[in-house]
Amino acid sequence: MILVGGGSRSGKTGFALAAARKRGTRLAYVAAAELLDDEMKQRAGAHRMERGTEFTTFEEPLEIGALLSRRGAEFDAMVVDCVTLWISNLLHAGREDLKAEGSALAGAAQACAAEVILVTNEVGCGIVPENELARRFRDEAGWMNQTLAARAAEVYWMVFGCALKVKG
Amino acid sequence: MILVGGGSRSGKTGFALAAARKRGTRLAYVAAAELLDDEMKQRAGAHRMERGTEFTTFEEPLEIGALLSRRGAEFDAMVVDCVTLWISNLLHAGREDLKAEGSALAGAAQACAAEVILVTNEVGCGIVPENELARRFRDEAGWMNQTLAARAAEVYWMVFGCALKVKG
Amino acid sequence: MILVGGGSRSGKTGFALAAARKRGTRLAYVAAAELLDDEMKQRAGAHRMERGTEFTTFEEPLEIGALLSRRGAEFDAMVVDCVTLWISNLLHAGREDLKAEGSALAGAAQACAAEVILVTNEVGCGIVPENELARRFRDEAGWMNQTLAARAAEVYWMVFGCALKVKG
Repeated sequence: MILVGGGSRSGKTGFALAAARKRGTRLAYVAAAELLDDEMKQRAGAHRMERGTEFTTFEEPLEIGALLSRRGAEFDAMVVDCVTLWISNLLHAGREDLKAEGSALAGAAQACAAEVILVTNEVGCGIVPENELARRFRDEAGWMNQTLAARAAEVYWMVFGCALKVKG
Repeated sequence: MILVGGGSRSGKTGFALAAARKRGTRLAYVAAAELLDDEMKQRAGAHRMERGTEFTTFEEPLEIGALLSRRGAEFDAMVVDCVTLWISNLLHAGREDLKAEGSALAGAAQACAAEVILVTNEVGCGIVPENELARRFRDEAGWMNQTLAARAAEVYWMVFGCALKVKG
Repeated sequence: MILVGGGSRSGKTGFALAAARKRGTRLAYVAAAELLDDEMKQRAGAHRMERGTEFTTFEEPLEIGALLSRRGAEFDAMVVDCVTLWISNLLHAGREDLKAEGSALAGAAQACAAEVILVTNEVGCGIVPENELARRFRDEAGWMNQTLAARAAEVYWMVFGCALKVKG
C-alpha cells in the first residue's frame, strides 16, 4: 500500500496514476464519489481525461475496502481517490467509528492482490476553522491519514507537483 | 532545543513525546493551556492518555520560559505543547511584542538543563482568512516559528505522522 | 528559473533574496502589486527593509513576463514576489486563461538573461473554503504552481524559515 497526500491541486492524482502505470497495465481507478453536483462532475471529468482509457473506473462512496477485496485480483494496481472524500461520505452516512473504518481499509489494501495507491488531502495546515463540523472533519482526516501512513509501505508528500518521499 | 511542527493531527505531540523518552526518564509535559472549555478538556484528555504516567504535567498559559528556567534541572526533557496556543494566550493577555517573547522563550529553552522540545502548528498554508484577527494570528505564528526554528538545533516537519527533518 | 514556495510567513521572500544575492550584485525585486490598502503598504514596507538598498524595485501587477524580457539583461537575478498575488491581479483584470499566462511567464523566466526566482504561496492545505471564489483561486494557484515547478530548475518548500529542496 502506498499513500500519496498533499494540498489541493498539488499533483497527487497525477503522481498516483503514474505510480500505478509502473505496476502494470491492468489498472483501476476508484472514485470515492457519487457525483452529486455540477462542480464535482466537472472536476471528475478533468481527472477522467488525465487517466485516458487505461483505467477501469469504479464509483464507490463507502465500501472501498470490500471493493478492493472483491476485484483486486483483476488488476495490477488500484488507485483510490480520495480518502478525505471517503471520510466525508462515511460521516454523512452516519458511520462514526472512523478509526475502525480506517483499520479495515488499511487491512483490505494490504491484503489486496493489486498494489493499492491511496490519494489523500492535507487539510490541517490552515487557521483553525470557526465551524465545528469543519474542525471535526479536520481532526478525523488527520487521524485517518496517520492510521494509513503507519501501515503504508511508502508515503509521499506532494508539493507543487513534486513528490517528496517521507516514508519507505 | 528541538522544534516539531506540522498541521493539526499530524502526529506532532506523539513524535515530541517519543523524542523526549529518548532523552531519559525524568520527563515533563508543559501544556500551554488553561483548559477553558469542554472541547479543549476532551482534546487534552486524549493527549494525557498518550503520555501515560511518565510525564509530570504543568499547565502554564504564559510564563513558559520562566517555568523552563525554574524547573529544568529536575528533568531530562520537557515537551512544550504548543507554541501557537501560547501565542494565542499572549495576545489575549495584551502582550503584543511577540518578537521579544519568542526570543526570550528561545533563550530560556537553550539555557535549560533539560532538552526542550517545542511543538508548534503550521497555520499558514490555507486561503488567506477573511477575518483580520486570524490574519494577524497567522502572521505572528509564522514569524514566531521562524524565530524558534532559527535557534533550534533540530527542526522537524510532520506529515501524516511521519517526521521529515528540515534542519539539524 | 527557481521556484520558492510555502505557507505565509514561512521565510520564502528572505530565502529568495538570499538566493538572488548569491547570483551577483545587480539585483531586482519585482513586486506583483499595486499597493492598494494600508495593510498591504505596511507588509510591503517590512519587506523593503529586508531588501535594503541592494535591490532595484519594480511594481508590476500584470505584465511580469514582459518586464523580465525587457529588463533582464540589466540584472544578475530578479526576484518575483509573488505568483499568487499575480494570479489574483490577473483574475481581477478579467484575464481568465491562467494556463496560458503561466506558460508565458515560465517561458519569459527561462529565456531571461537574469536568474529568475519566483516566490509563491501554498494555499491548498486547509479545509475546503465555503466561498466559491476562494475555491476557484485555490485551484488556479495550485495548477499555476505545478506549471511553474515543472519548468523550474530548482524548487524549494519553506518550513519555518528552513528550505527543503523538492526538485533540482
